[in-house]
Amino acid sequence: TLEINLSALEKEGFDHFMLKEIYEQPRSIRDSMRGRLKAREGIVLLGGIIDYQQKLVNAKRIIIIACGTSWHAGLVGEYLFEELARIPVEVEYASEFRYRNPVIYEDDVVIAISQSGETADTLAAIELAKSKGATIIGVCNVVGSSIARATHAGSYTHAGPEIGVASTKAFTAQVTLLTLMALMLADSKGTISKSRFNQLLHELDDIPGKVEETLKVNDKIIEIATVFKDVRNALYLGRGYNFPVAMEGALKLKEISYIHAEGYPAAEMKHGPIALIDEEMPVVVVATNKGTYEKVVSNIQEVKARKGKIIAIVTEGDETVKALADHIIEVPETEEMLVPLIATIPLQLLSYHIAVMRGCNVDQPRNLAKSVTVE
Amino acid sequence: TLEINLSALEKEGFDHFMLKEIYEQPRSIRDSMRGRLKAREGIVLLGGIIDYQQKLVNAKRIIIIACGTSWHAGLVGEYLFEELARIPVEVEYASEFRYRNPVIYEDDVVIAISQSGETADTLAAIELAKSKGATIIGVCNVVGSSIARATHAGSYTHAGPEIGVASTKAFTAQVTLLTLMALMLADSKGTISKSRFNQLLHELDDIPGKVEETLKVNDKIIEIATVFKDVRNALYLGRGYNFPVAMEGALKLKEISYIHAEGYPAAEMKHGPIALIDEEMPVVVVATNKGTYEKVVSNIQEVKARKGKIIAIVTEGDETVKALADHIIEVPETEEMLVPLIATIPLQLLSYHIAVMRGCNVDQPRNLAKSVTVE
Repeated sequence: TLEINLSALEKEGFDHFMLKEIYEQPRSIRDSMRGRLKAREGIVLLGGIIDYQQKLVNAKRIIIIACGTSWHAGLVGEYLFEELARIPVEVEYASEFRYRNPVIYEDDVVIAISQSGETADTLAAIELAKSKGATIIGVCNVVGSSIARATHAGSYTHAGPEIGVASTKAFTAQVTLLTLMALMLADSKGTISKSRFNQLLHELDDIPGKVEETLKVNDKIIEIATVFKDVRNALYLGRGYNFPVAMEGALKLKEISYIHAEGYPAAEMKHGPIALIDEEMPVVVVATNKGTYEKVVSNIQEVKARKGKIIAIVTEGDETVKALADHIIEVPETEEMLVPLIATIPLQLLSYHIAVMRGCNVDQPRNLAKSVTVE
Repeated sequence: TLEINLSALEKEGFDHFMLKEIYEQPRSIRDSMRGRLKAREGIVLLGGIIDYQQKLVNAKRIIIIACGTSWHAGLVGEYLFEELARIPVEVEYASEFRYRNPVIYEDDVVIAISQSGETADTLAAIELAKSKGATIIGVCNVVGSSIARATHAGSYTHAGPEIGVASTKAFTAQVTLLTLMALMLADSKGTISKSRFNQLLHELDDIPGKVEETLKVNDKIIEIATVFKDVRNALYLGRGYNFPVAMEGALKLKEISYIHAEGYPAAEMKHGPIALIDEEMPVVVVATNKGTYEKVVSNIQEVKARKGKIIAIVTEGDETVKALADHIIEVPETEEMLVPLIATIPLQLLSYHIAVMRGCNVDQPRNLAKSVTVE
């Protein structure tokens, strides 16, 4: 009983660690930026990689290696580094990378992402890339972990201990770190203007507040979860920065509710998955995009034409999607490249509430381990 | 009635175009190699790209752009070009590539893959890459199509007209072409020895015969289809060259049988999807690998431990997986890098028979168009 009380205490009044960790994100994102993002001074400083900053600036290519949720953070990183710092990025599953005799050059920079810092495949991929002379930068949450020690340099996410097996705050902390890195590089390389840089720093500085704001959708999401808790399948669609968000949202639902959910870049729907859509298939669409808003709207119309049910994440005040979707979740407006930090939150909550309603063991889902330390 | 008779005639005794096209693959692969692969003389000659061969040899990077099934062919291409010609490859969804302001250099070579040559997103991505000065090589099936005309050079797949909406023979023809390109480049660059090159040419030359041999699994697959026709979900797993094969197998099942199937690199299973596995979830494992055979075996054991049902594609004579799996499909042995041309066949047949047993319109699946000429 002492154990139970301790555990209840550690959950700080939340029913599960996962929910507590979802709610910690305004703080864990803030903690991951503290001392690194100085918006007023117009500075991004990542002490852990400062000695390798020039290597990154000169990199002809960045290879991001990860597994699972960290791989999704890597996909967001790809878009960030390419858009901001104009460096080509390849994102690889660690397990595939290590076994396929990949082409690695000495001027490649490898970024390895792992919450635990103990992921076996990622560690093996690092050793391979190191043996070919590449520079390895780590993004881990656990201080002193194997990956943190195996890399040349790195920046810790300061998400704090993550107990829930399905990663939540570690993911947004990883995305925060990758955003800081991409901004630092863009500034060093001069690939964005100083005014744009400052604008993005201020917007990033506002993200913890906006995440706080986003968490208020919880009641709305409980309603939506009640409607969809018994589905067998779901599709998650997004474009651009929201494509990895859709993948990650689908993975959460898989992991803790055992519903077969799959994420797709929205435009790929017409190349196959749209055949699945009927009245029993809910489609979660992350539709906050500015650049490709009309395309996403047209994807929604296609789903509706096939009687699919739409749950849409939209920017506050959106009217077009509201008129089309069955359920709407509004999130605060931000820069398109920062949307993953916000749009991820309602998807975490959706998977959480559905899993709870299905009676699943949210913090310890069947078959899963917190860190995959075997291949 | 004239129309019906004509259509029956065109199907040459097969119940559906899709089945006819699956069975045409020994010929369509052979046709795609004719005049190009001269195994006895030790020559690969791709007339359509010969003027750009030096561009390819000097390419610092190859970007493959495609959608749907062609994107899966591109993933196989990535492994082929990297292993054989030691050129880093990035495979992009055309729809994502075109909207994210990608980094493109003048010495990049872009390979665009599309059966119809009319895929709207791929065409737009080509125009974008062209405007940045990249060299564009096309791999299309339809002669004179928009993409064939928009590219600098290219090689046609000679699969013949594909009527079934779910692509089969076009996919294997695309993979054949990419294999020829990678071999040609490897020879020009000297990244593989002459003897290895010749060995691979001979093995490739034998593929049509081995595909013919593989088609004999049809009766076995009908039995398996009978067992699994009513499932709601399925996972497809593979590693290395078999990872795209798994993705493509899952897409076929989605497209024509409306079963929610998802392909994954086998090692990623432990990072989430394994939570889905129970006695109702069949798992199709492409387990022909030599290099990572033990890893695949261990993935199968994990699925079995969770009561999942295993359908395994194995190399003739395999004993280990046979002892573990619920259902086995044997295919002829070949070089690991050529396995996609063979292992794909039983997965096409599996989706076909399941769809027929479910009463689906195999050649014209709901919601899908043969070529996606709108965004």
